[in-house]
Amino acid sequence: MAQNIYDRPEFFAGYSGMRRSVHGLDGAAEWPAVRALLPDLTGKRVVDLGCGFGWFSRFAMAQGAASVFGLDISEKMIARARADTDDAAVTYEIADLEHLKLAEASYDFAHSSLALHYIEDFAGLVASMHRALLPGSHFVFTIEHPIFMAPTHPAWSTDAEGRRIWPLDRYSVEGARTTDWLAKGVVKQHRKLGTTLNTLIAAGFAIRHVEEWSPNDRELRDNPDWAEELDRPMFLLIAVQR
Amino acid sequence: MAQNIYDRPEFFAGYSGMRRSVHGLDGAAEWPAVRALLPDLTGKRVVDLGCGFGWFSRFAMAQGAASVFGLDISEKMIARARADTDDAAVTYEIADLEHLKLAEASYDFAHSSLALHYIEDFAGLVASMHRALLPGSHFVFTIEHPIFMAPTHPAWSTDAEGRRIWPLDRYSVEGARTTDWLAKGVVKQHRKLGTTLNTLIAAGFAIRHVEEWSPNDRELRDNPDWAEELDRPMFLLIAVQR
Repeated sequence: MAQNIYDRPEFFAGYSGMRRSVHGLDGAAEWPAVRALLPDLTGKRVVDLGCGFGWFSRFAMAQGAASVFGLDISEKMIARARADTDDAAVTYEIADLEHLKLAEASYDFAHSSLALHYIEDFAGLVASMHRALLPGSHFVFTIEHPIFMAPTHPAWSTDAEGRRIWPLDRYSVEGARTTDWLAKGVVKQHRKLGTTLNTLIAAGFAIRHVEEWSPNDRELRDNPDWAEELDRPMFLLIAVQR
Repeated sequence: MAQNIYDRPEFFAGYSGMRRSVHGLDGAAEWPAVRALLPDLTGKRVVDLGCGFGWFSRFAMAQGAASVFGLDISEKMIARARADTDDAAVTYEIADLEHLKLAEASYDFAHSSLALHYIEDFAGLVASMHRALLPGSHFVFTIEHPIFMAPTHPAWSTDAEGRRIWPLDRYSVEGARTTDWLAKGVVKQHRKLGTTLNTLIAAGFAIRHVEEWSPNDRELRDNPDWAEELDRPMFLLIAVQR
């Protein structure tokens, strides 16, 4: 069983207050870049791994998807997703992505937002997705960037000249990283970017796009505090095709 | 015209003394990992971008390649490559990879070792390689890892607890990086890992493997000072197929 941090009261309260939880997709800095990677969703049978409050599920339906199957480990999130969604073509289920079971060749598109870096058996999940998707289907997902996840102390520091630096170490030491983010003892699984890509390739996916997100000029003008994202990427966006 | 640092006396002297220059491929830490990515070279017409002293060209012939065309901007290196190679099927030419001109559909395999991070117009070079290679051909190359290239001060530092850290900044600010390595004012071109991959994909190459090199346990035992490579990767190895 994977760690379910989301249902801890302090985590859920903190997470519920985040911009992306209050404002949905438009509250996420990386959303415009994710959206640019999406295929036409018209008529697609969509699966969303780590659907949270169901923001993407409802977006997919608004884009013309035929159906959406949203999965999340959090009972509280699934409860709110169900309460916020009024569409019989959308179903939500509590599920542990660490042991993903999906019907074979049943989906035309898969999405996941900031969930897969919690998964220990990434190769197993990728193999499940390859079986569940029909040939030609796209899979677009985001994870925390390994540069963001790797360090012993993943927090900004300054060098001798007062310049902001990201104190990278242990990049090539893969495995668990425990941090205190919204709750104490949150466990993430650090993998090199190369490992993530090679796992997808080995399962039979073709790499279509790899985006190490950073703000563009307009986004920087509107959000000057995002400038730190130019120094080290926080989000990794990957688009592959079966 | 690309910067030709190699023919500066101080650079050439320093470079000629490096392990990889004295001992050839076996003197390069990343060579076993590169070799593992190579296809069967039997009968292949090989092009080597930045062939240096010709170590890889001679290796390819020993592996049964039909011919090797080695290109390098350095007159001194080409002169030594010619002097060290006694095989009519190997030809060397002084060439600026920034303006690569190769015969169309004339090669079955392309290789490049630590040369392409000097190239400003990477998209142009990749397009040239795609035209020069026959369908199905592999292209295996190494560059300095963007984590290694990005920082304002690309040198080890220590955090408040005395831990070794790599002071990453400007990862998403692409463009020239000027360092003093063997000679003053060496200019390299920093690109995000995603940019390098997306450029290859856009040109029509399929990504086969992405290796952010770090030593394995045996290599660490034999070379304890390589442990720092676990903290930040220096070499990026990429295998693609046309």
